[in-house]
Amino acid sequence: MKKTDEFGLTRLVVLIAIMATFFLSAGKVRAQDKAKYMRIANIGVDSVSLDKYKAALEEQMRAALKLEPGVLAYSAVYHKNNPTRITILETYASVAAYEAHIQTVHFKKYKATVADMVKSLELIDVVPIVVKKKR
Amino acid sequence: MKKTDEFGLTRLVVLIAIMATFFLSAGKVRAQDKAKYMRIANIGVDSVSLDKYKAALEEQMRAALKLEPGVLAYSAVYHKNNPTRITILETYASVAAYEAHIQTVHFKKYKATVADMVKSLELIDVVPIVVKKKR
Repeated sequence: MKKTDEFGLTRLVVLIAIMATFFLSAGKVRAQDKAKYMRIANIGVDSVSLDKYKAALEEQMRAALKLEPGVLAYSAVYHKNNPTRITILETYASVAAYEAHIQTVHFKKYKATVADMVKSLELIDVVPIVVKKKR
Repeated sequence: MKKTDEFGLTRLVVLIAIMATFFLSAGKVRAQDKAKYMRIANIGVDSVSLDKYKAALEEQMRAALKLEPGVLAYSAVYHKNNPTRITILETYASVAAYEAHIQTVHFKKYKATVADMVKSLELIDVVPIVVKKKR
């Protein structure tokens, strides 16, 4: 009788552990799927290459938005009083989508093209508070 | 005959001047109407007030987007590794729309609410290069 109880208890513990693992991992995957990955890039560009840099940036962004399901939005601006300072707010569907993005042909082409034009690069992971457009 | 010619020439010059003034000013107004005004605000918030600050910011932004035709978009984020650093990318229909915005009840309420919470404020006028979402 005692032996049967112990066996039943062991099975119950194993079952709970399996169920807990299943539900926790399922929850994690769902949360990760929903969590967009946002980043700010602050870029300093060599002034003599500014027009070429902007053209390469625009080409990269248009290709990524068109071809990659996980590239959701770009807001690239330059600072009015300091036009060699570029700030980009990037939105990806997930960290995995970003990691896939940097392996694409268009991203690698952009990186190679601008390698000598970019004088400084600061990358800041950010979290949305309010991201909203007028309806 | 000479006198008539001179009179005709004077009228022609005056007419050209009036027309030039009219078309140049009309063109300027149209260009100004189309030119969105974009700005980055970098804000440092007192850590003890962070939740209250975010709530006040969100209330202000939702009111502005709902009530003001000239407030077009806000992207407000905090820096993941430094949550008291807030960056906002703001888009207004024009400089005039922004100037009207800061006179509104909701903006003045926000400013009064956060006066003691904001430790630093940097405002940067910016110009769009690519601002694009996935279709």
